[in-house]
Amino acid sequence: MTTPNMNYANLKDSYLFFNIGQKVRRYLEQNPDKRVLRLGIGDITRPLCDVVIKALHEAVDDQASFDRFHGYMPEVGAPFLREAIRNHYADRGIELKVDEVFVSSGASDELGDILDLFDRSNSALVIEPAYPAYVDANVIAGREIIHLASSKENGFLPHPTDDAKADIIYICSPNNPTGAVFSRSQLKEWVDFANKHGSVILFDAAYEAFIEDDSLPRSVFEIEGAKTCAIEICSLSKTAGFTGTRLGYTVIPKALVRNGMSFNDMWVRNRTTKTNGVSYILQKGGAAVFTPEGQQQIKENISVYKNNAKLIMNALDEIGLWFCGGKNSPYIWLECPKGMGSWEFFDYLLNEIQVVGTPGQGFGECGEGYFRFSTFGSPEDTKEAARRLCELLR
Amino acid sequence: MTTPNMNYANLKDSYLFFNIGQKVRRYLEQNPDKRVLRLGIGDITRPLCDVVIKALHEAVDDQASFDRFHGYMPEVGAPFLREAIRNHYADRGIELKVDEVFVSSGASDELGDILDLFDRSNSALVIEPAYPAYVDANVIAGREIIHLASSKENGFLPHPTDDAKADIIYICSPNNPTGAVFSRSQLKEWVDFANKHGSVILFDAAYEAFIEDDSLPRSVFEIEGAKTCAIEICSLSKTAGFTGTRLGYTVIPKALVRNGMSFNDMWVRNRTTKTNGVSYILQKGGAAVFTPEGQQQIKENISVYKNNAKLIMNALDEIGLWFCGGKNSPYIWLECPKGMGSWEFFDYLLNEIQVVGTPGQGFGECGEGYFRFSTFGSPEDTKEAARRLCELLR
Repeated sequence: MTTPNMNYANLKDSYLFFNIGQKVRRYLEQNPDKRVLRLGIGDITRPLCDVVIKALHEAVDDQASFDRFHGYMPEVGAPFLREAIRNHYADRGIELKVDEVFVSSGASDELGDILDLFDRSNSALVIEPAYPAYVDANVIAGREIIHLASSKENGFLPHPTDDAKADIIYICSPNNPTGAVFSRSQLKEWVDFANKHGSVILFDAAYEAFIEDDSLPRSVFEIEGAKTCAIEICSLSKTAGFTGTRLGYTVIPKALVRNGMSFNDMWVRNRTTKTNGVSYILQKGGAAVFTPEGQQQIKENISVYKNNAKLIMNALDEIGLWFCGGKNSPYIWLECPKGMGSWEFFDYLLNEIQVVGTPGQGFGECGEGYFRFSTFGSPEDTKEAARRLCELLR
Repeated sequence: MTTPNMNYANLKDSYLFFNIGQKVRRYLEQNPDKRVLRLGIGDITRPLCDVVIKALHEAVDDQASFDRFHGYMPEVGAPFLREAIRNHYADRGIELKVDEVFVSSGASDELGDILDLFDRSNSALVIEPAYPAYVDANVIAGREIIHLASSKENGFLPHPTDDAKADIIYICSPNNPTGAVFSRSQLKEWVDFANKHGSVILFDAAYEAFIEDDSLPRSVFEIEGAKTCAIEICSLSKTAGFTGTRLGYTVIPKALVRNGMSFNDMWVRNRTTKTNGVSYILQKGGAAVFTPEGQQQIKENISVYKNNAKLIMNALDEIGLWFCGGKNSPYIWLECPKGMGSWEFFDYLLNEIQVVGTPGQGFGECGEGYFRFSTFGSPEDTKEAARRLCELLR
């Protein structure tokens, strides 16, 4: 008799975005004349940039041609894209070998799959508030999860302590949902901590393209010692608008070895066993992002979101609410006014000014009393939302 | 200290296609004037059909437009594609609910990921000769593997016996590498066996589009009782030339329940935790395959491969060698002449007539003495290879 993986029964149902959707729907049914401004979603709204579109069309044409047709791709990624990514790191002073770079279908997919390299007896540290999938993916594997709460007091950037000892350490910087970014010295503490205890850091760099302050690390591999303790998981979703197009990449240094096993070698074996590589078409589109033209065009798109962030940050400053994020991140994390709870503040904003955000409580208990705004909406909606926020809360 | 998944140390290195490549390269270095005809690869050579190319271009254009842009897709698949697949099954008399259909990045990816639904204490039955990833994916999970050898005597279509009792049962029909196809009554035996023992069949239907004999099942769900014991994993790779474009689909019936857990529910939870869905562009391309025009065009491509199969089958008949496959499958599996071993025959063909196939021994020990030809090459090369085979072996 087959036994299912009973760990699935231990998953908590996640109703965060479902509940938000329900509440907004119900509100609009009762108030059909109102216009709701959505700053809750983490999905981008601007189309792919021209150079990516052109590359995608060319790749589709290749797949129509006998001479240029591509069948199975290398499971670890096409050489042209691995090299482009390696060179992108080199431009920022990070030396990688081409075979330390793996192409993926996106950061979510990779964050799930990569856990296959770890024993199920390993513990996983999740710094909360956090992206819920970190916890769920480890619950599915039956791993012990160590929750490390962060807070306003440490700017949602906790230091490693003995409570935080774990085999796998998730670090997301710039952070979702808080928008907080570890400084080089703060990140160095975590790298040293991981090396000292033999832990492996899963560094989620999905939002690195939003860092504008050059003193902040965009890659964990800017930190000395990271190559012996970290895997970096990156995505073009927010960098280049690939949320629905799908492409990402992962860096696993050759120097990352535990118990005599190379994580790089294991991942090659995992990919060749469990995939047949990523679509040629998408890899061609992704490679265009790393051209000088592509880098220019994605910066233009990102600057639109950054203007949105400024509008919201200015409003919050005017109101006098504490927040972090926004400057080097697409997310803004604020303390709810007048001691309101996350969901209380959600209802208040929806009912009073029809602005939708995400209650912080949905990212872990220590998010209670906080609220996330996303800057991925349209400039018009964001401007109007900022105006309404000021009017209501000033 | 992190413990890696030490099961990776138990994987055997697979040098099958590496060794083939090496041997061919060395031969060509020594014989630069010779033309090698490759019937070894399992990759297709014909480009995507027009209706798919058109849909891909349109989808790329959507991603360039503010109004038609698609961000995150539903993790389980886009409704338009799930419905198209459901309707495709309905056309063949198989009634499925839309939410029993999941979109995937391809059969390889899915065959690897789906094992996450099973406890690691489960045993897995692999009917050999077999696609090597079935074994490797379970070695990575530390599962006990039960090898069931098939043979010429049973037409490489073994019956279930007490030796074959296992929690997970892999069935690939039409089979890679043997090209053998289970009849309805033979498949019914396996379905009854799985239901009796509470096993789950992972039915790999990657080659179903090559079945031309209507009396043979193209889906396990043509068999009564399959909905309580089977998951079907399908691919557009060979059906529609998607090996390098990537797209597949998986059917998990709602009625598949073990120990109170619904595999369908678990897979929804797995996908929403571990992916962000499949590319909108690829899903639009995939949906075009299921239009009447798409079905017509893919049949034209498949008919080219089927003509290749006829050329090889005619040659083998003329020579008088035993083989199976070819008629309802893109693979032809033959007994090496004069008691030759697989690799001996490989060297003989390469040296004498510069024809490359795949030694059967690479698919499991019981494949020793057999040889696989693929029919995915060009008609010109296949015709010439068939001519040379006849000349050499007749």
